[in-house]
Amino acid sequence: MSKSMTSENLKIVSLDVKDVRFPTSLQADGSDAMHTDPDYSCAYVTVGLQSGLQGFGLTFTCGRGTEVVVACVESMKNLVIGQVVTDIYKEFGVFWRSLTSESQLRWIGPEKGVTALATAAIVNALWDLWGKLVKKPVWQLLADMEPEQLVSCIDFRYLTNVVTKEEALEMLRKGREGREERMNKLLEKGYPCYTTQAGWLGYSNEKIQHLAQKYMDAGFTAFKVKVGKNLKDDVKRLEYIRNVIGWDKTLMVDANQVWEVQEAIDWMKVLAPYKPLWIEEPTSPDDVLGHREIAKALKPLGIGVASGEMCCNRVLFKQFLQTDAIQYCQIDSARVGGVNEILPVYLMAHKLGVKVCPHAGGVGLCEMVQHLQMWDYVALSGTSEGKWVEYVDQQHEHFVHPTVIENAHYMAPRAPGYNTEMKKESLEGHVYPNGKEWESMFAKGIFSDPRKSKK
Amino acid sequence: MSKSMTSENLKIVSLDVKDVRFPTSLQADGSDAMHTDPDYSCAYVTVGLQSGLQGFGLTFTCGRGTEVVVACVESMKNLVIGQVVTDIYKEFGVFWRSLTSESQLRWIGPEKGVTALATAAIVNALWDLWGKLVKKPVWQLLADMEPEQLVSCIDFRYLTNVVTKEEALEMLRKGREGREERMNKLLEKGYPCYTTQAGWLGYSNEKIQHLAQKYMDAGFTAFKVKVGKNLKDDVKRLEYIRNVIGWDKTLMVDANQVWEVQEAIDWMKVLAPYKPLWIEEPTSPDDVLGHREIAKALKPLGIGVASGEMCCNRVLFKQFLQTDAIQYCQIDSARVGGVNEILPVYLMAHKLGVKVCPHAGGVGLCEMVQHLQMWDYVALSGTSEGKWVEYVDQQHEHFVHPTVIENAHYMAPRAPGYNTEMKKESLEGHVYPNGKEWESMFAKGIFSDPRKSKK
Repeated sequence: MSKSMTSENLKIVSLDVKDVRFPTSLQADGSDAMHTDPDYSCAYVTVGLQSGLQGFGLTFTCGRGTEVVVACVESMKNLVIGQVVTDIYKEFGVFWRSLTSESQLRWIGPEKGVTALATAAIVNALWDLWGKLVKKPVWQLLADMEPEQLVSCIDFRYLTNVVTKEEALEMLRKGREGREERMNKLLEKGYPCYTTQAGWLGYSNEKIQHLAQKYMDAGFTAFKVKVGKNLKDDVKRLEYIRNVIGWDKTLMVDANQVWEVQEAIDWMKVLAPYKPLWIEEPTSPDDVLGHREIAKALKPLGIGVASGEMCCNRVLFKQFLQTDAIQYCQIDSARVGGVNEILPVYLMAHKLGVKVCPHAGGVGLCEMVQHLQMWDYVALSGTSEGKWVEYVDQQHEHFVHPTVIENAHYMAPRAPGYNTEMKKESLEGHVYPNGKEWESMFAKGIFSDPRKSKK
Repeated sequence: MSKSMTSENLKIVSLDVKDVRFPTSLQADGSDAMHTDPDYSCAYVTVGLQSGLQGFGLTFTCGRGTEVVVACVESMKNLVIGQVVTDIYKEFGVFWRSLTSESQLRWIGPEKGVTALATAAIVNALWDLWGKLVKKPVWQLLADMEPEQLVSCIDFRYLTNVVTKEEALEMLRKGREGREERMNKLLEKGYPCYTTQAGWLGYSNEKIQHLAQKYMDAGFTAFKVKVGKNLKDDVKRLEYIRNVIGWDKTLMVDANQVWEVQEAIDWMKVLAPYKPLWIEEPTSPDDVLGHREIAKALKPLGIGVASGEMCCNRVLFKQFLQTDAIQYCQIDSARVGGVNEILPVYLMAHKLGVKVCPHAGGVGLCEMVQHLQMWDYVALSGTSEGKWVEYVDQQHEHFVHPTVIENAHYMAPRAPGYNTEMKKESLEGHVYPNGKEWESMFAKGIFSDPRKSKK
C-alpha cells in the first residue's frame, strides 16, 4: 500500500446506494419455473474514501424488491461511514459481525434475506476497494494472503462443530502447495464454465436448439436447462438439447424450487434417461432434510443434487454439506453476506469433499464469483476437476471490466479490485425509476411508471 | 356477515404502514445476551375497506430496522389494495402465496427475514379484519371454522412430506371432539402463561428477586430468565431465583443464540443443578442439526430444547419438528408470514407430538399469540398440559384491547378481531421519528435525532 495513504486519507467518507434495473423480462431472459418474468437488477453500492478512491459492490435482485434492499443498505450506512478502511481489513471478520449482528437491526434477519443481501453489497464494495488499494484483482489478493490474515476475515460463529479456525489454517497452509504453478496455468488457460444461456424456460425449443449450437461452437461442453413447469415439455426440451450437444457433453437441469420432495424424485426418474449430471434446486432452498432425501433417492440413477444460490447463510450451508444433502455446492457472490461469509463455505466444502460450482448469471454475479473460484483453485482445493462456474451472457456490457470468456473458460481478471464497477452511462440509463432508459420505456407504455401509481 | 356488506363495500381501498417505537432500551427492558439494548417497536399496518371498516396488524421489531420492514410493506401494497376481502378469505392460502411468492419480490427472501415480517404485518391485519366482519375474536373464528375452510388458509407447499392437506383435515375433525366443553373452560379460567419479566439480562439480581416475588404473589408458577453472557453470573442468577420461587416451580432459561453447539452443552451441564425445564435458543436459530445434537446431549439431564421465535419459516419448523431437535416449539405471531403460516406449524407439532409454547412479549405479540394457542386448545390438540404462553408485562397499555391476565392465565379475548388495534394517542406519541414522545426525547438529548445525522 502506498505510503502516502495516511489514515485520514483512508477514512470512509461516503456510502451511496442505487437501485439499478434492466428490462430483461421483455425477452424472457432469465425466466424459470419460479421467476417467470425477472428484470435483472441490482442494489449498487459505492464506498468513497477521503482520498477520493472508490470501491463498488452490488447485490443481484430480480426487479421489484430492489428498493427494499436499498433501504436496508441506507440503514446500515452509519455502521460504515467514518471507519478507517485499513482498520477494517486488519480484522475484517470482526467488522463483518458488526454489520450482521447489530443489536437492534439483527432482529429483522438475522443473517438472511434482505439484511444478508444488503450486507453483501456493502462488503463486496469493501473487497473491491481493498483490491484497488493493494493493486490486485481480488482472486489474487485472496490467494496471496497469509492463512492467518484470511481466517481473520471469517466469523466462525456457529461453524465450529464443523470447521474451526485451527482446521481452516491447516487447510489453507496445505492449499498453498503448488500455488505458483496453478496461478500460471490459470493466467494462461482460465477457469472452466458451463452455460445456462440456452435453456431459459421462456425460450422456444427452436431458440434453445439454436443457442445450444452457438455455445457448442464456442467450445462449451456443459449446458444447463430449466425444467419443472410441465413434465412433457421437459422431456421434449432435454431431447432437443441432447440432439444438439450429443451424449458426451454434460447436461444439468434446474427446477428452481418448484417441487415437493417426492415430486422431485418422481419427476427426475422420468428425466433420468437424458443423463443429467445434477438436479438443481429441486425443492425449498431451506429444506436440508428434503434435499438429503432426494439426493439419496437419485444417487442410484447417477444424478446429484445441487443447491446454494438461495441458501441464506453459512449455517444452512453447513447443514447441507454435513448431511451430503447436496453434491454440488452453488455459492452465490451476493446471497449470503459477501466474500467474508463465502470463504468459510469453501472451507467446509473442501473439508467435507463437496464440489463447489458457483451460481452466476445475474447482474455482476459472473464478474464477482470468478474471483472466488479462482482463489479456491489456486490456494485451497487446488483443482478445477468437475467444478464449473456458471456463465450467462447477459448485462456484462454495463461493467467497466466485464468477464472475459475464451474457449468456455473465464479468463483471470487482471484489473485491481472485484470487477464490480459499472459504466457511468449504464447507471444513468438504468437507475430505477429515474434513469433515461426507464423514463423512455414509461413514456412508450412498455412498463408502467411506479411513481404514478403511488398515492 | 351483515347483508349490507356488498362486494363494493368489501373492497380494500387503503393500506397504511407506520414505524412505531418505544424507548425500552432506557430501562434495559427486554435485554438479553444478543439484544443488549432493544427499543421495542413495530411496523403497524392499517387495512381499510370501502365501507370504512379497518383491520390492524403488526410485526414486532427491536428499533433500528423497523424502517426496512415498513419499506417492504410499502412494496407489497399493490398486491393487496383493490382486492375484495371476502374473496381473499375464500381461499386465503392462495392469496397468501401471492404475497410470499411474487415472482420478482421473492428473490429478496424468499419467505424469510424482512419479507416474512412484512407479510406477517399485512396478513395479521387481514385476520383482525376478518374477526371484525364476523364479529368474533380470532381464536373463536378459527375454532368455529369448518376444517375445510381452515386448511384453505394454508399453503402446504414444501410440507407434504410431513403433513398433507388430507392429514390436516383428519386432525382437525378429530380435534373438534369436546370443543364446547373446552371453550367453556377457556372462557372461565383462561390459558396458562409463564413470565419472563423477572429475568432480563440487564437487570440486577435485586431487581430480579423483587420481580420474581411479585409474580409469585400474582399466582405465576413458571419463570424464565436470560443466561449466556457470563457463566458465573448465570449460576448466581439461577440461585437467586430458585431461592425465591423454590424447587416446586418451573424454571426456564434462554440464551438467545449466543453459543456454539458444544459450548451450549458444556454451559448447560453447569446450570443443570438448577433444574431448568428447557434451554431456549442455545445456538443459531437456523441450525436444526446443531439443536438436535444439543437436545440429545441434554436429554439425560432432563433439560429440553426450545426454539422458534426466530425460526424463519414453516420449512425450518418442519425440520426442527421432524428431527426432535426441539421439544418446545415457540411459534411467534409475527416472525413467519402471519396466522396462515403458523397454522401448519401447529398441525405438524401436533402430529409429531411436540409441545407448542408460544413466544410473546414484544409489542403486540401477547395480544396476538393468545388467540392461536387458544384455538389449538379448543379445536386441535385439546390440551394445555405443560404448554404455557410466554407473558411479559410491557407495552400493553398502548392497545385498545390489551391482554387480560388473571391468576397467571391469559383470559380469552371477547372483542372481535385480533386485539391488534393501538390507541390513537400511543401512535401519535411513538411514531418514529416524528411522534411527540420522540421529538421530546430528541430535544432533551436522550436519543439523537436520526433526521439530523442524515446527509
